[in-house]
Amino acid sequence: MSPFRASPGFTEHWRNFDLSLADGVATVTLSRPDRLNALTFDTYADLRDLLAELPHRGDARVLVLTGRGRGFCSGGDVEEIIGELQDMTSAELLEFTRMTGAVVKALRESPLPVIAAVNGIAAGAGSVLALASDFRLLARSATFAFLFTRVGLAGADMGSAYLLPRLVGLAHATELLMLGDSIDAERAERIGLANRVVDDAELGEAAAALARRLAEGPWSAYSATKVLLTRELDMDLGSAVELEAITQALLMTGEDHREFHRAWSAGRSPKWTGK
Amino acid sequence: MSPFRASPGFTEHWRNFDLSLADGVATVTLSRPDRLNALTFDTYADLRDLLAELPHRGDARVLVLTGRGRGFCSGGDVEEIIGELQDMTSAELLEFTRMTGAVVKALRESPLPVIAAVNGIAAGAGSVLALASDFRLLARSATFAFLFTRVGLAGADMGSAYLLPRLVGLAHATELLMLGDSIDAERAERIGLANRVVDDAELGEAAAALARRLAEGPWSAYSATKVLLTRELDMDLGSAVELEAITQALLMTGEDHREFHRAWSAGRSPKWTGK
Amino acid sequence: MSPFRASPGFTEHWRNFDLSLADGVATVTLSRPDRLNALTFDTYADLRDLLAELPHRGDARVLVLTGRGRGFCSGGDVEEIIGELQDMTSAELLEFTRMTGAVVKALRESPLPVIAAVNGIAAGAGSVLALASDFRLLARSATFAFLFTRVGLAGADMGSAYLLPRLVGLAHATELLMLGDSIDAERAERIGLANRVVDDAELGEAAAALARRLAEGPWSAYSATKVLLTRELDMDLGSAVELEAITQALLMTGEDHREFHRAWSAGRSPKWTGK
Repeated sequence: MSPFRASPGFTEHWRNFDLSLADGVATVTLSRPDRLNALTFDTYADLRDLLAELPHRGDARVLVLTGRGRGFCSGGDVEEIIGELQDMTSAELLEFTRMTGAVVKALRESPLPVIAAVNGIAAGAGSVLALASDFRLLARSATFAFLFTRVGLAGADMGSAYLLPRLVGLAHATELLMLGDSIDAERAERIGLANRVVDDAELGEAAAALARRLAEGPWSAYSATKVLLTRELDMDLGSAVELEAITQALLMTGEDHREFHRAWSAGRSPKWTGK
Repeated sequence: MSPFRASPGFTEHWRNFDLSLADGVATVTLSRPDRLNALTFDTYADLRDLLAELPHRGDARVLVLTGRGRGFCSGGDVEEIIGELQDMTSAELLEFTRMTGAVVKALRESPLPVIAAVNGIAAGAGSVLALASDFRLLARSATFAFLFTRVGLAGADMGSAYLLPRLVGLAHATELLMLGDSIDAERAERIGLANRVVDDAELGEAAAALARRLAEGPWSAYSATKVLLTRELDMDLGSAVELEAITQALLMTGEDHREFHRAWSAGRSPKWTGK
Repeated sequence: MSPFRASPGFTEHWRNFDLSLADGVATVTLSRPDRLNALTFDTYADLRDLLAELPHRGDARVLVLTGRGRGFCSGGDVEEIIGELQDMTSAELLEFTRMTGAVVKALRESPLPVIAAVNGIAAGAGSVLALASDFRLLARSATFAFLFTRVGLAGADMGSAYLLPRLVGLAHATELLMLGDSIDAERAERIGLANRVVDDAELGEAAAALARRLAEGPWSAYSATKVLLTRELDMDLGSAVELEAITQALLMTGEDHREFHRAWSAGRSPKWTGK
């Protein structure tokens, strides 16, 4: 547990998804399979708050997002979210859209690497949750659809118009966000949206293997890499080079870098502590 | 017509390209086929001014750019532009280059989605007009050549050194802009410059179909997507997420989002008004 | 030689790599083949200082980076750098990491186009030297490995977390920098990291041909293209369009642009001076 946490305790039970924690790997499984894991207001709120707690717990180094059943996440529930929005004031609508954006900011700014194990359809907000993750492993049957315009809303949602061009370039991003068409796993991999496509039956083990590797390895190095990748999208060259110089100098005083050198000198493999 | 237009009327006749307007689709056809639609000073000026008028007319929701004959646009006319530049003062040269840049800014900042139907060679300024569009549909025989260095000028022209890396990455962009080599439609598609390549005979219908889709669909959603994609290239993550939250909250009060919900509840297709 | 150089002379002998200069092409060959051209403190310092001198000499228009033997550059020497770092103070570590970053800044900000002829393994700092070049020509047997996390350090090193996402997108960059896995030339080309892959035996001639083309062509145009590509990664659209307008107006008064027009009018090929 972080030494820098005071009055708040940790949430005992997350009611809007399944959370498992083992060997440094936190796994969030969206579990409304009959609705392809559509999100409710409460799921967003719980995701936002879990992401705030997770780095303080001390027992989680990696986060895996996945879904139960045939879908990864079909986005905001049409009845429980879109239906409700019809009667909200402007102030309430903004409070909602800010919450959804806060989830994406928390994913990008989390010190934990995040793996999206996309087991099926990722649509709307579901596609953005995957987009905001650090790794996207796709089942061969998975699909993406940034379908916001199909419900009459902007394809720019939860940071999608910021993130997608930075992954796949402005031309693909414009097409995917403006038209909202579905794309399959093969195209997602070809344009640089998916890191890897595996057979459906192998997705769980592929995600688990990557999560183990990240949890058991030089975690501070992984985490610094992720945080700087996030920040340097918004920095100029000179500032980025300076930030990396300072960060690297700090990590050179860390335990894992020393352990690498000891291990190399002794001709053995390093025993990473993540410190 | 926009309620926010006062004294100026609309231009009756554009002398330097053909303009057609039908069913919300404005089509600019560059029409000097014997010169592969090379641009003159007046063509630039007219493009800049048309782009300023178009969103105010009220009868145009989408702009299609294309060329007559074998070329899309071969860039600045060697006689009528490059020849004239030889005798200009520095102030006049800057006035010219600012005008060309103003066309690209207007394309990127227009609320109308822009489709480049690239029917043949797109060279120099012609390649940048296509680059600054939102969609690039290419005839199979089309080619791109950012050939500025071949006339002794910087490959950075009309924003090309800003835009191209954001579409195809810095490595491809450096090569294409520094060397000015021609690339074919297949390579343009592979690196993410073309959205789609179709047989030459099918280009007109492919562009028309996409234009119809954009004109008849939830236009405010399409337009917001385009505008935010443009703006968020220049924003940090936090600002982008906030901009999207505010935009989306506004669109949630719009007619098309309400229509989506009504249609969904009634089990029918939405009738978009674009409002 | 530049008219804007006063007291300092030019370095006579670079002790930490081979430097050749001929026909406007400077070639740096890293030459510790028994260590796969691992870098020492002194190699970094010499690279930084060479890059500062080179544009002032007047006899170099292009820089080629390559390696002797089976490797391009295997990164910081484990004994001579990593071993030494173990006993340094924080201030010394920062002085070192700032020096390494200064090399990358100098490569990106140099007015000379830089070609990395990657003849074999490019690992750690070696992969970033190639990444910071303008062109990457790869021997078919070449490999890249951003292996910083494998020594317990951040994958963000010498600007890698700034540069790599701007070449290959955030998804590929996250994977390559966080995991540090090796990738072969074919994948490097597919994701947009390599410009071209050639048979091992042809690499030298391919790099020489490109260098000749850049040295003998309209050099001011090439150089302006490179410098603006570097700068415009950090600019907004409006500023970039203005910078290009001003640069292009300046180059329109240059000798090479006038020569293009004279040659075109006379139906002959231009004789570039690079002025």
